[in-house]
Amino acid sequence: MSDFDYDFVIIGGGPAGRRAAIQASKLGKAVAIVDDQKKIGGVSVHTGTLPSKTIRESVLSVTGWRDQYFKSGRQRDGADATRDSISSRLSTTLGDEVEVIDSQLSRNNITTLKGKAKFASPNKLAVSQTVQGKKISYSVTAEKFLIAVGTKPYRPKQIPFNGTTILDSDCIAANMPMPKSIIIIGGGVIGLEYATIFSTLEIPVTVVEARENILEFIDRDIVSNFSHQLSERGISLRLGRSVDKITLDKEDHPQVQLDDGRQLRADMLLFTAGRVGAVDGLGLDKIGVFPDNRGRLTVDPKTLQTTQPHVYAAGDIIGFPSLASTSMEQGRLAACHAFNHPIHSSEHSFPLGIYSIPEIASIGLSEEDARAKGLQVEIGLARFQETSRGHILGNCKGLLKCIFDLNDRKLLGVHIVGEGATELIHIGQAVLNLNGGIDYLSDTVFNFPTLAEAYKVAALDAYNRMPQPKLRA
Amino acid sequence: MSDFDYDFVIIGGGPAGRRAAIQASKLGKAVAIVDDQKKIGGVSVHTGTLPSKTIRESVLSVTGWRDQYFKSGRQRDGADATRDSISSRLSTTLGDEVEVIDSQLSRNNITTLKGKAKFASPNKLAVSQTVQGKKISYSVTAEKFLIAVGTKPYRPKQIPFNGTTILDSDCIAANMPMPKSIIIIGGGVIGLEYATIFSTLEIPVTVVEARENILEFIDRDIVSNFSHQLSERGISLRLGRSVDKITLDKEDHPQVQLDDGRQLRADMLLFTAGRVGAVDGLGLDKIGVFPDNRGRLTVDPKTLQTTQPHVYAAGDIIGFPSLASTSMEQGRLAACHAFNHPIHSSEHSFPLGIYSIPEIASIGLSEEDARAKGLQVEIGLARFQETSRGHILGNCKGLLKCIFDLNDRKLLGVHIVGEGATELIHIGQAVLNLNGGIDYLSDTVFNFPTLAEAYKVAALDAYNRMPQPKLRA
Repeated sequence: MSDFDYDFVIIGGGPAGRRAAIQASKLGKAVAIVDDQKKIGGVSVHTGTLPSKTIRESVLSVTGWRDQYFKSGRQRDGADATRDSISSRLSTTLGDEVEVIDSQLSRNNITTLKGKAKFASPNKLAVSQTVQGKKISYSVTAEKFLIAVGTKPYRPKQIPFNGTTILDSDCIAANMPMPKSIIIIGGGVIGLEYATIFSTLEIPVTVVEARENILEFIDRDIVSNFSHQLSERGISLRLGRSVDKITLDKEDHPQVQLDDGRQLRADMLLFTAGRVGAVDGLGLDKIGVFPDNRGRLTVDPKTLQTTQPHVYAAGDIIGFPSLASTSMEQGRLAACHAFNHPIHSSEHSFPLGIYSIPEIASIGLSEEDARAKGLQVEIGLARFQETSRGHILGNCKGLLKCIFDLNDRKLLGVHIVGEGATELIHIGQAVLNLNGGIDYLSDTVFNFPTLAEAYKVAALDAYNRMPQPKLRA
Repeated sequence: MSDFDYDFVIIGGGPAGRRAAIQASKLGKAVAIVDDQKKIGGVSVHTGTLPSKTIRESVLSVTGWRDQYFKSGRQRDGADATRDSISSRLSTTLGDEVEVIDSQLSRNNITTLKGKAKFASPNKLAVSQTVQGKKISYSVTAEKFLIAVGTKPYRPKQIPFNGTTILDSDCIAANMPMPKSIIIIGGGVIGLEYATIFSTLEIPVTVVEARENILEFIDRDIVSNFSHQLSERGISLRLGRSVDKITLDKEDHPQVQLDDGRQLRADMLLFTAGRVGAVDGLGLDKIGVFPDNRGRLTVDPKTLQTTQPHVYAAGDIIGFPSLASTSMEQGRLAACHAFNHPIHSSEHSFPLGIYSIPEIASIGLSEEDARAKGLQVEIGLARFQETSRGHILGNCKGLLKCIFDLNDRKLLGVHIVGEGATELIHIGQAVLNLNGGIDYLSDTVFNFPTLAEAYKVAALDAYNRMPQPKLRA
């Protein structure tokens, strides 16, 4: 042990921070996490990933959405009962999750320090907290640090947030709103996840997005299928439109003035257009680390070091893709680098998962990316309705798309829209990362009936069009 | 074209027959399927695989079983309403499936001949059917044949089947029974699937099985978790017990006399102890092919030929594993061999899927198999409760087990019990068949939150115990 209190102090107990802490602890280091929330877990557990996914699952359950194909006029609970179901499920699930995290940290001998951290000098943090009304403060020193403070919703000053009819996404987990109609500003991942959740509750939804397209990092065929499903369900997408002004009317309902002169009105407005790094009050100037204008930190993508070699950053605070899964991996890599542990630099593609209703998932290259790289490709498509399990589940609208390299027959990318997509993508991920291709997928015997059979259907679809001597069924 | 009516005539329109027909048709052959059911599809569509899986999904839906962790006292529909829901979902799903099959066969120029087939000579079938009360008969000749007639329930003469209180599994799809209690004779896959379906409907279930263990082809840890879940739900398993006598009491309720002298009584009895090949009336003696005492045909496992080289057999009629998935692959291989098409003899392991509640799935070696082969193994276990999605879904009882080779670190087998198992197994299948192992699974970034993360948890569990210089989180 050095002269410091700890080898590694991590600011923020979200996915990146926890994974880094566990990795460093397994390497025999003395580790502490400083976290200013009442309960450990970060945005991921308390306001972001898990609450939105739990609300989503709860909404699917209370509305019977997964069985909609088989139901004519299902009795719905009223708004209050629905809200109660959602809240109760949230509190059970998040409570379970906090227990799991607490036990995991204590099993790994990781100290948790409650309070707000501020750099006092390059190796010293001032940690302050309020205990029984009194503010107390103490110092913690460490050889190395990880900043994993995450992000918070971006709240432009000109928007009259009031916590009841004009909200940001952090407000939703605390108290699930059941408005009569809702406008969502921002058609990014968070905006679309909530848009589809509210729409499943049969609440009319309008989404306003400044860009001309949604989900630009996803294959266009998948986005087109998804957009079609949204429009079938009556979700209104206003693309390429920006907001001139948001005001409240006499009843405190939001009114939105768009740049094309049109006005939108609804019961409630959810602002999801961007998040900013939660760097306020961290005293980064004391260590010469400077966030960008959205509060994000720049790191060396291989080592996760900031401009100060002993200070690392990981998770949402360093920007795209801002997923819990990738944040965990960044945390692990940062800890390994910090303590000279050899890193498997897995060049593996990581998957994207969007928990809209229905789900979207993606791995590897999109068709557009592959063609832009000059690759010769063949495309295989499978609709979930081409699988028996699609029929059994009433889950027929899904689409799975495989991109194969015409020359070496390898799988280049998989893109899926449909319930189950976030799980199914991992089959494609394994094939892609282990250098499999069209011959593996078309020869494989899948369980019957499963949605996974869509991979075989897609592979055979492409197979029949690929230049080769032999024919296949 | 030869002097025959067709190049390939297939008896039976189930998964093996259809897949063979499509393969032969893609090879440019003239193909007909003879099927004696009103609608094409075989046992798989009409009384077996699809109905039981559809009933299963319908029961999960009407009982809210997937959400049970979050519900205290959910209002249940009565027996009649439940039966109606199940029937209506069955008729929608099977109707959709028949449409898909019809369209697939006609797209591939496959002739469907209705009627009962009987060999008249080695290359000639007599096909007879009853049209408007009149029996008509005609001949069909072909160069090659495939027998894919499947199986039917074994009905020992001493059991007083009556179609109302003593049933075989074929009766269930036609009219879903809702007894007050049920005895199931036979703890094989079909018996256990229905046992868990009835139990989910809160109908008391007793299963009688002559063997000392259920599911002997599945890893023991998985069977033990599954058995524990059955017993928690009050399913009574009588193992190592055989039936001396089954009688009906005055109210037509079954009474079972076991070999240990005990008597069981219930509202209804389902007999699932075995199936026999549906070879009656096929005239196999005319071509010198002889079924065994359970009506099964023996084939060359590589070519699927019977003792008559121009007559192939595939599907349930040739025995284990009798899964729709493997039957399809057998059908494809038979057609390829029959018409000299080179076969990718994929030495790939195929998965097993059991659609009990919860599901069970398996690929590769069990721990017992691996140790019996003298392999040095390390085991990785993950409970679904160790994943966030397990908590979100309330799907915490599941268990995933990975078997790794201690020497080359490769994956040897994966075994899963828990909802989602039949889909999740395909990730392990890809890793196993593409020669991946513990390093792939522990390095991989999975979507968060997903059940697939259980693979990473299991891999890290084993990793930490494997001999190696480097430590991992």
